[in-house]
This record gives sequence, C-alpha cells and structure tokens, in this order.
Amino acid sequence: MAHALRLARRGLGNVWPNPAVGCVLIRDGHVVGRGWTQPGGRPHAERVALDQAGALARGATAYVTLEPCAHHGRTPPCAEALVAAGVARVVSAMTDPDPRVAGRGHAILRAAGVEVEEGVREAEARALQAGFLSRIERGRPWLVLKLAASFDGRIATATGESHWITGPAARAHVHGLRLMSDAVMVGGGTARADRPSLNVRGFGAVRQPVRVVVSSGDLPDLPPEGPDFGPLWQVSGDPAELMADLGARGLTRVFCEGGGVLAASLLRAGLVDELIGYTAGVVLGAEGLASVGAMDLASLADAPRFRLVESRRIGADLFHRWLRA
Amino acid sequence: MAHALRLARRGLGNVWPNPAVGCVLIRDGHVVGRGWTQPGGRPHAERVALDQAGALARGATAYVTLEPCAHHGRTPPCAEALVAAGVARVVSAMTDPDPRVAGRGHAILRAAGVEVEEGVREAEARALQAGFLSRIERGRPWLVLKLAASFDGRIATATGESHWITGPAARAHVHGLRLMSDAVMVGGGTARADRPSLNVRGFGAVRQPVRVVVSSGDLPDLPPEGPDFGPLWQVSGDPAELMADLGARGLTRVFCEGGGVLAASLLRAGLVDELIGYTAGVVLGAEGLASVGAMDLASLADAPRFRLVESRRIGADLFHRWLRA
Repeated sequence: MAHALRLARRGLGNVWPNPAVGCVLIRDGHVVGRGWTQPGGRPHAERVALDQAGALARGATAYVTLEPCAHHGRTPPCAEALVAAGVARVVSAMTDPDPRVAGRGHAILRAAGVEVEEGVREAEARALQAGFLSRIERGRPWLVLKLAASFDGRIATATGESHWITGPAARAHVHGLRLMSDAVMVGGGTARADRPSLNVRGFGAVRQPVRVVVSSGDLPDLPPEGPDFGPLWQVSGDPAELMADLGARGLTRVFCEGGGVLAASLLRAGLVDELIGYTAGVVLGAEGLASVGAMDLASLADAPRFRLVESRRIGADLFHRWLRA
Repeated sequence: MAHALRLARRGLGNVWPNPAVGCVLIRDGHVVGRGWTQPGGRPHAERVALDQAGALARGATAYVTLEPCAHHGRTPPCAEALVAAGVARVVSAMTDPDPRVAGRGHAILRAAGVEVEEGVREAEARALQAGFLSRIERGRPWLVLKLAASFDGRIATATGESHWITGPAARAHVHGLRLMSDAVMVGGGTARADRPSLNVRGFGAVRQPVRVVVSSGDLPDLPPEGPDFGPLWQVSGDPAELMADLGARGLTRVFCEGGGVLAASLLRAGLVDELIGYTAGVVLGAEGLASVGAMDLASLADAPRFRLVESRRIGADLFHRWLRA
C-alpha cells in the first residue's frame, strides 16, 4: 500500500476533477502491475495496472489507494474490470465518498467472490486525497496558502522590492508544490504588481495548473493559455462563494500565493486548510509589505489557529507547514 | 572534551564577566575530577576539579575548554595549580584571548614539563564562549534577539493582546535561554506596556540575570533586586555605545526580548549576533503589532541577513535560530 500511495501522488495536480489513485498488483510475491491515474483522470490506476499485468492478474492481490469505482463513465467500472481479470483479493485504503461509488465498488468485488480488505493506511490515503475529499464533502477545493516572507513576516520592502527574499531552492520547491496543485491563485494586486507567471517550471512537460486571479478590476496582460501556461480564470466576490465556484468547476487543490489582502480575506473566512511558510533570514522592518493584510480581529481568541506538521531547511530558508487546528 | 564542554555550559549566565569553563581530569581511564566555573566566576573550573581529585591528580590528563589562566587575581593562576598538582598532560580547546593570558597559560604548563595539546574541539568551544569572546574582542556582549510572534510576524493584536501567542512549552524554553544569559533586555515601550518580570522561573534558585531596560523615559514600578530578580539597569542612547557600555560593565551575553522599536534599532545598527524566533500557528493580520519596527532600509540588499542554524518544534510552536550571515 505504501508503494501504491507513492504512485498515487504522481497524479496530484494532474487528474482533477478526478481523485489521484495508485494501484499495485502482486502475485506470488512479485509486482505484476503498477498504475496511477493518468493526466486528465483517465485511464484509472487499476486499468493501467491490469493492462500491465495481462494474464498475470489472475489470482493476484490488488492494492488500491481508493475504493475501485462502480459507475459507468467514459470507461467501464474498475471494480468490474478487477473481477473480469480474475483478481483474487483487493486491499483498499478507503471507501470512495463519491455518491456514485460509496461502497458499491467494494460490494461488486465481494459479490463476485473477491476477498476485500478495507481501511489499510486510511489516514495516509485520506491526507493524500484531501483535495478530492474536500470537493466531494465540502463542495470546495482544499486550499493551501503559501507565504514566503522575511523573518519578520514581510513580502516586500516599502519600495516594493521582493526579488528575492527567499532563495533559489525555496523557489524551486514552490514549483514542486504548484505541480501538485490543480490551480495557482493570486489576488489582483499581486497580479498587477508582479505579473506572475503562475506556472510550473523545471519539471519538464507537465499539465500546467489553472491560473486563478481574484479581482474585479482589470488585469494586466498575462500570457495566453498554452503548453507553458494553464487556463486563466478571473474570479471575484465573496471568498466562500468563490471557493464553491472553483469546486463546481472541478478544482480539488488550490495553491494560493497571496498577496496580503487575498490571504487575509481567505483566512478571515476560515477557508485556509493548510498554511505553508518559507521564512528567510532577512529582516525588512515594519514599513515593509505585510504578508497578511488586515484581519479585523476582535480578540486573540478569534485568530485562526494552525498546528505544525512539518518544518525543515530548504536551501538557506526555513520551510514550515501547518494544518488548520 | 565533549564532557568538559557540557560542564562548561552550566556556567553560562552565571559567571560574567568571567568565561564559563569546564574541566575534566582523567587518570588511568577514570574520571578523577570534574569542575566548572562557579557562580560569580570563582573558583575556576580547574580548581574545582583539582580539589575533587586530590592526590589522584598526579599524572592525570586535564581536559579544559579554555586555556588555563596565567594571572594572579583573587586566586593563584590555574596553570600553576595544574603544575603543582602534578598533572602530566593538558588538552585545551582554545587559547584565552584575554590579554592577561593569551598563550601564557599554555607556556607556564610547557615550561614546567607538562605536555600540552591545543585546539581540540575549538569550534565548539568558541561557539560556547561567544559572549566572553565578544566582550574581549569587540568590547561588547554577544547579543541575542528573541522574537515570539504569530505566523505573520505579529507580537500583539491591534488592541494590544499578546498573552499568549506562543504556548507554555515555548515560554518555558525562553526561561532556559534567560538562564544562560547575563542580562535580559527590553525597550521602554515593552517595559511600560507589559511590566515584564525579566527573571528566570522554573529552574530553582539561580543567579538572576541583570534586567536592562532601554529607555530615556520614566519606567513603571518594577520589582526591586532580590533573590527572584536581578539588578535593574536603565540605559539609553546610541545602540552601539549602549552595547559597549554593557560590555564595560562586564556583561558577556545579552538576551533581548523586544519590543519592535528596540529590535529594529539593534538590527539597523548591525548589533544582533543571533536571532531566535518562536513562530506560533496563529495569524493576526496587518493591524497587529509588528515584531520589528521601522528599519528605514533603502533597498533589499541593505537588509540584515542571517543564516539558519537550527529549527525544531517546541510544544505547538516552531523554534528557529539564526546567526548573523
């Protein structure tokens, strides 16, 4: 299952609105097939692994990070494909909360005499699937807010200088996080001030994330959609409605890179699921631009709280990741 | 020597204006004496270890974290005491830069036929001795600036609420750092707003650090000096002169806990040797009080830079330590 989870990760950012799934087929102690959800969401991980295994799938055990699908979409359901291939046992990490599946995949397998074990490494699978789960269960994408700032929480000097506060290793790391996101989002002020590329560089040919700019005003000329740039969506309005709208359009994982005004409005609305900081060893002082704008908090008790899950050095900077408490 | 360095640490904050030294005497593979500089600076580590060893010091090897002293002060020089006790060999981590010693301690030993090895674990010894070295070599104490702030670099809400942004484990950790400091320093604004105790709690009976308040204005009533509170010194003026004055008064390690105005003036003057952050998983927004006040930087290139040396979780908070780059 650990292997299947690693395969599943490859789909993050590539498969929306579908879940990123991994599948490993084992027969007689040997891997006979491996698959992960392909770009755009098809074929599914199980289909890829079964095609790889061919006749060797008969009698094998399939490890899948999500319950095999049970609904006829563009392809026949994976549960039926596993049965047809003669798989003897399916070990699954979690039930698919999609109402079209919701236990029916496991039921199809059991009805056909396949041994099914559920809930293996479920916590890891759910963490990996946070975006898909958020969209199904809350109707909006998982939202990561990333802030790269000075030791004292500034993202630019008073004169607007921001290139570069953090180092090249941290900036490359950000591209890796964009790669695992369906969309990269910024506010209108940042779009106008920085004209950011909002694409993934340094990882070869990839499915570029959607570029979401939150602004009701005019935008500067940004590059058109193409191999190096994802679709450009301009949105505005109430933050919760806006996130619901992005969920309805199929996004499961949104990576917000500021600026301060958008960050504050998302935090104030309780929409930030994950906070990522890159802290540089530089001090810019109070007249620098704040990483988070005004929050209008009545008291310290009202401030949004996050719990630390990870921290480490990246290049010269400190990377830290927090989940909503 | 690792053992001697651990012993030496016990003196930090306790022995100013003297260096914190550790000494271990080994004979035939057994520890026959251990010593560290005692509170107030006397007796020296070597004297303590020799007294413990008694006749067993004869023929022993002494591991000392700093060159044994060569000058007659309130006590005879340690170099002569080691000779008199019949120590056969001295392994020392570094030369004492104090002009009254500066190699003469090692010379006394060699002249008496004691075998001397110098420079063992010197980098660690110098790091431990940063305060003493700073006072001798630069005429001012080593300055640590500690800032406990929200994820976005705020030390209080707009309404002045600051209790508590970081958690109890981080606050207890701060007391451990105060314990290793000769003085705890704050600005006048913080002294008036918070009336901070600036003492060490939770470590039993200790030599309390000097309380330094940087302000030319009136101070609030702060507790008088006593078993639970160190001396109270009010200072003001140019930051570099102020630090030189603290050095002249004997301080080797000063721990500054803000507020933002004092932090900015020390940073701008290039006086901060070490930066310590406690980052809490809470976001307060731009109207909160900034951890560092205005710096008047002309450009990003002028901002003071620090390199990360350590980061880890303490309770719910992220602790990170940086040295001047």
